[in-house]
Amino acid sequence: MTGRDADSTRSVRAEAASAGADGGEGVAIRRASADDLAAVVALLADDVRGADRETPGDLAPYREAFARIDADPWTLVAVAVRGGAVVGTLQLTYLPGLSHRGATRAQIEAVRVAAGERGRGLGGRMVSWAVEQARTRGCRMVQLTSDAARADAHRFYTRLGFAATHVGFKLALEDPRA
Amino acid sequence: MTGRDADSTRSVRAEAASAGADGGEGVAIRRASADDLAAVVALLADDVRGADRETPGDLAPYREAFARIDADPWTLVAVAVRGGAVVGTLQLTYLPGLSHRGATRAQIEAVRVAAGERGRGLGGRMVSWAVEQARTRGCRMVQLTSDAARADAHRFYTRLGFAATHVGFKLALEDPRA
Repeated sequence: MTGRDADSTRSVRAEAASAGADGGEGVAIRRASADDLAAVVALLADDVRGADRETPGDLAPYREAFARIDADPWTLVAVAVRGGAVVGTLQLTYLPGLSHRGATRAQIEAVRVAAGERGRGLGGRMVSWAVEQARTRGCRMVQLTSDAARADAHRFYTRLGFAATHVGFKLALEDPRA
Repeated sequence: MTGRDADSTRSVRAEAASAGADGGEGVAIRRASADDLAAVVALLADDVRGADRETPGDLAPYREAFARIDADPWTLVAVAVRGGAVVGTLQLTYLPGLSHRGATRAQIEAVRVAAGERGRGLGGRMVSWAVEQARTRGCRMVQLTSDAARADAHRFYTRLGFAATHVGFKLALEDPRA
């Protein structure tokens, strides 16, 4: 293990410890159920990009996708709940692989924090929760990508111990349902 | 769909068409079987980084990981075969998700081309094959990350129509087996 990796591990552990086992400060983080779906989709839509591409008024495609996620032991949607309200979400997927002697990686996608909760540390608690889940599952790495324009998000992940070592490439395909 | 996305789609389609249905030029691309595992691990180890972290002389951890991959309908290891020899590999995983109206993404990992085959277009044929698999499965996006230092790889993915829109963050966790 390199010095940088060891430092990263310590940083995230400290963050997770300060957040407390339940997410801290009245927030509980748990696996989402179908009952959370409307709230999760509302968070996805409350975003500059999401406003164009999500349809919170038509949940049918999300229900179908959630059923697939819920049946898959290797992926989950998590929600952060405060006072009975969903105030954050992220998706965590365990990717099998052959490299690194057959190591499993955890991948974080779709991190969203409710507008009124931003800047209060909730995002950090959610990501630290995901890292602890990954550690419990024996993952060797946690990975994610962040839009190149979002310098604030990059500072956020760097503070949590992540290293910006890669370039993320995307290729959009046409929507078969469009 | 933006203009850039449409251009990306055309670029990959042209590349895939020029490669031919079987990968072109005597190369067949297919799902790997357990019999290919030693050759795949040898490719993973034949790499500046892989030389340190892979153990081609001890296949047991790879066999365990391959069994998990092989049983999972949402992920596969592909091999490129020329004259009966494995000359390339990549992994393709279909990631479910709620965003983009429940869109599934395809993620490419662990792309390797045998030393003697590099610079002959095999990597492009392999990635184009993966993109066509993703299209057939109805994916809305294909994504991957590439080491920030590898400018040659970045030009390669850009030529194939991918856009370098994201920063890839990684957090190494300690090896529970170490």
